[in-house]
Amino acid sequence: MSAFVDPRPSNTDVTTGPIAGSSKHYSPNGVPARRVQLSTGEHFDLYDTSGPYTDEHAVIDLHRGLPKRGNVVRDRGTQLQRARNGEITAEMAFIAEREGVSPDLVRDEVARGRAVIPANHNHPESEPMIIGKAFGVKVNANIGNSAVTSSIAEEVDKMVWATRWGADTIMDLSTGRDIHLTREWILRNSPVPVGTVPMYQALEKVNGDPTKMTWESYRDTVIEQCEQGVDYMTVHAGVKLAYIPLTVDRVTGIVSRGGSIMAAWMLAHHQESFLYTHFDELCEILARYDVTFSLGDGLRPGSIADANDAAQFAELETLGELTKIAKSHGVQVMIEGPGHVPMHKIVENVRLEEELCEEAPFYTLGPLATDIAPAYDHITSAIGAAIIAQAGTAMLCYVTPKEHLGLPNRQDVKDGVIAYRIAAHAADLAKGHPRAQQRDDALSKARFEFRWADQFALSLDPDTAREFHDETLPAEPAKTAHFCSMCGPKFCSMRITADIREAMKDKSAEFAERGNQVYLPLVP
Amino acid sequence: MSAFVDPRPSNTDVTTGPIAGSSKHYSPNGVPARRVQLSTGEHFDLYDTSGPYTDEHAVIDLHRGLPKRGNVVRDRGTQLQRARNGEITAEMAFIAEREGVSPDLVRDEVARGRAVIPANHNHPESEPMIIGKAFGVKVNANIGNSAVTSSIAEEVDKMVWATRWGADTIMDLSTGRDIHLTREWILRNSPVPVGTVPMYQALEKVNGDPTKMTWESYRDTVIEQCEQGVDYMTVHAGVKLAYIPLTVDRVTGIVSRGGSIMAAWMLAHHQESFLYTHFDELCEILARYDVTFSLGDGLRPGSIADANDAAQFAELETLGELTKIAKSHGVQVMIEGPGHVPMHKIVENVRLEEELCEEAPFYTLGPLATDIAPAYDHITSAIGAAIIAQAGTAMLCYVTPKEHLGLPNRQDVKDGVIAYRIAAHAADLAKGHPRAQQRDDALSKARFEFRWADQFALSLDPDTAREFHDETLPAEPAKTAHFCSMCGPKFCSMRITADIREAMKDKSAEFAERGNQVYLPLVP
Repeated sequence: MSAFVDPRPSNTDVTTGPIAGSSKHYSPNGVPARRVQLSTGEHFDLYDTSGPYTDEHAVIDLHRGLPKRGNVVRDRGTQLQRARNGEITAEMAFIAEREGVSPDLVRDEVARGRAVIPANHNHPESEPMIIGKAFGVKVNANIGNSAVTSSIAEEVDKMVWATRWGADTIMDLSTGRDIHLTREWILRNSPVPVGTVPMYQALEKVNGDPTKMTWESYRDTVIEQCEQGVDYMTVHAGVKLAYIPLTVDRVTGIVSRGGSIMAAWMLAHHQESFLYTHFDELCEILARYDVTFSLGDGLRPGSIADANDAAQFAELETLGELTKIAKSHGVQVMIEGPGHVPMHKIVENVRLEEELCEEAPFYTLGPLATDIAPAYDHITSAIGAAIIAQAGTAMLCYVTPKEHLGLPNRQDVKDGVIAYRIAAHAADLAKGHPRAQQRDDALSKARFEFRWADQFALSLDPDTAREFHDETLPAEPAKTAHFCSMCGPKFCSMRITADIREAMKDKSAEFAERGNQVYLPLVP
Repeated sequence: MSAFVDPRPSNTDVTTGPIAGSSKHYSPNGVPARRVQLSTGEHFDLYDTSGPYTDEHAVIDLHRGLPKRGNVVRDRGTQLQRARNGEITAEMAFIAEREGVSPDLVRDEVARGRAVIPANHNHPESEPMIIGKAFGVKVNANIGNSAVTSSIAEEVDKMVWATRWGADTIMDLSTGRDIHLTREWILRNSPVPVGTVPMYQALEKVNGDPTKMTWESYRDTVIEQCEQGVDYMTVHAGVKLAYIPLTVDRVTGIVSRGGSIMAAWMLAHHQESFLYTHFDELCEILARYDVTFSLGDGLRPGSIADANDAAQFAELETLGELTKIAKSHGVQVMIEGPGHVPMHKIVENVRLEEELCEEAPFYTLGPLATDIAPAYDHITSAIGAAIIAQAGTAMLCYVTPKEHLGLPNRQDVKDGVIAYRIAAHAADLAKGHPRAQQRDDALSKARFEFRWADQFALSLDPDTAREFHDETLPAEPAKTAHFCSMCGPKFCSMRITADIREAMKDKSAEFAERGNQVYLPLVP
């Protein structure tokens, strides 16, 4: 009875419908928002990464793929080249509205190379977005199967699920069976840019033996992925032969897959990395599709002990050199960063990256602020991520609770995305992003006024907030009660404060009379 | 059939036995450690807060309580007074060994008021510990029932459970039925210092009407709790009448229970807080038992919008004044801190506290770095906690996922403690704590060498680390396999790095020959 199993996802494999308490709103220009309708009659619009899946009117058909943007301009160069020419592209206009900034700012940041718009001409399903420190901090979610586990349907589901909770981009890091097919399903159905590490597929093509790889086969893999619509590609071209010995005394050696694969190849052939020697050709290929480089940190530290060491910073210097080459070809570039870094060494990474790489958008994995908490590395790394984003990182690559232990499942993906939306938002607040502060204020006001439903709806995860509240007070009247089970009715400080304000209103004249004498602030 | 339910806990209500991969070790002086036996034959000792519950040889009898320390010295003053006299107390000697520092350092920090040893003479069940920025960052876990939910047995279980995962102190914040009895069960069975907010019981005594409270009834409650053995008490004596109007324009008013209760009392009576006017008497009481003040931040910000405002800092200035008074009575003092603070405003809190309060140990609740993630506030606050601890906070009060939503259950308590052990450890690392770095190195070395069992055993939560790993690769041989399901066998960077090191060893002569030319680090 072992029936043939169709590897293709079906429409019921993914989660659709609005986030609780929100509905999809499109501006006249098609810019999406998650609109929260408040019980006060006002509404609050939130940046929305989730695509048509949260639109209750959308018809989702995974086999057909998402609707395509109609205004993709081909053969007129990259966003970088067009920005340099002073053009405000359709993507830039869309992004300006999405971010709440002027189109000029978008164009100028792209022209300077301080921001990128990953938008392969062949991925018209994606909604334009920008990665750069002048804009909201972005979050990437890694998905993809390994040889050991997972299927195409599960990975498409993870993509939809991750964008539902706020992933701004997705990286498909599949290394197992059906790499091309998995990616095709993801690309055709992804409302966000998709990144890959082409090396993984190149290695599969030689059955996993790094020493058998060739530049030609790698190049063909890159072209195949460009044609398919991949928006950005991690290329570990900064791992040079000369740097490998710098890793020998490390506690955890080389922990980047791509870095270790290239190191093995270089040692076997006693040659410089073909990614480095053929970098100009790579640039020419990527420029044709406007694929963005994500220059990989193949020598990133894999432990606190190895942070900020000679190997890491040697590679970063080479990434700076490659950044200039890529930009001379009109190719957009971002720079990947660590890894595992103790808090006091985090800011140094941003400073050096900006100095060496002309402020190309920094895209960091965490970093994890300690090594000692496997199963909680979404938290260890959210700490590092918040700090590094405050210092100027433009996009954070999430880490899930399964990091170091196994392939993330659906729940891990959500936990990782939420932890990273927290880190990104904390950084936006610390950077003074006006929209960030407005959301905190709206939620806190709802909390203070016991508008429980509004509080849930404005939160990152309304489902879980409501579920936690209802664990002890499930009845509907508790949704307007002036307390929760944490303190009970008598000890609710917010209820008491409301009483105090009422009392003070009654006695306002009396207070005002004494006010100037008694109530002077003691600290300016 | 509704049988009488005995409210007293039974021994089966609590979790006993060693943490997986560890065993209890006592030094000749009785200082406990969680000893991890590594597969290499070495062992690694970890700071251990869990008391006899993790000792496989201990006989736990909740009805008898934990064994009592025999060397408690009464009627010879407080640890502060004795430190000033140059004495190294039994507690200080114990702590010095526990922290791996000199007894002189412990005494000097206590004498200066930069560290406290919360050790009520009437709580001999507790193992001595220290709170101060020269030592490891500590974590407090709040437990306690509310009128809405929970029982004595549940709270005793939470206490044992919290210390198992690393809580250095416990606060019993019960506000419901049986406050005295709940506390008695916790104290007699707690291996760590116990803190309370006496106001909560004082308010219960007047049926929850703040305006009915009196100094006399509050004082009697304090004495009752001192007699019982409470080690430190939160007293919101810094909330003065004059500061209440400063909270009127806040987004979230007064969010401390104690602060709002006192504000209500002051407004109703048009009098200064009795906690402030009777502070000297309070000091005299606490000095008799060596109970430590935790001067509460009744006006702490409850939202990002209210952080670092005039109300908060006015109260902090008063706390500085009270610190000096308490110390003049020989009473140990720590200072409570916020709350909700965006990242860029966190360090200012520590700087001001140290300046105004003579560097008395800072004890902060988080702070939460954003308001927008109810159900994930262990994470929003772990970010703030790590940053504030790096800046000098001595003890972090945990926040659980249920914060703002309901009373934490057992799983929430564990999640809160682990998130805060991460924050504390990240800060220890950033402060250069030598033992902290050693643990990271030991775990990362185990990870790199595929000693999975050692990696789990050295982690904060071996159970969950193993469970996550086994979700995809449950078979026992996977515990020594040179990969996990995250990347699968072909893509394991650590396996490839091991191969590279092997290859480099073979070619070491050749590499050495070229080395000086080719392998110079490019960055110093």
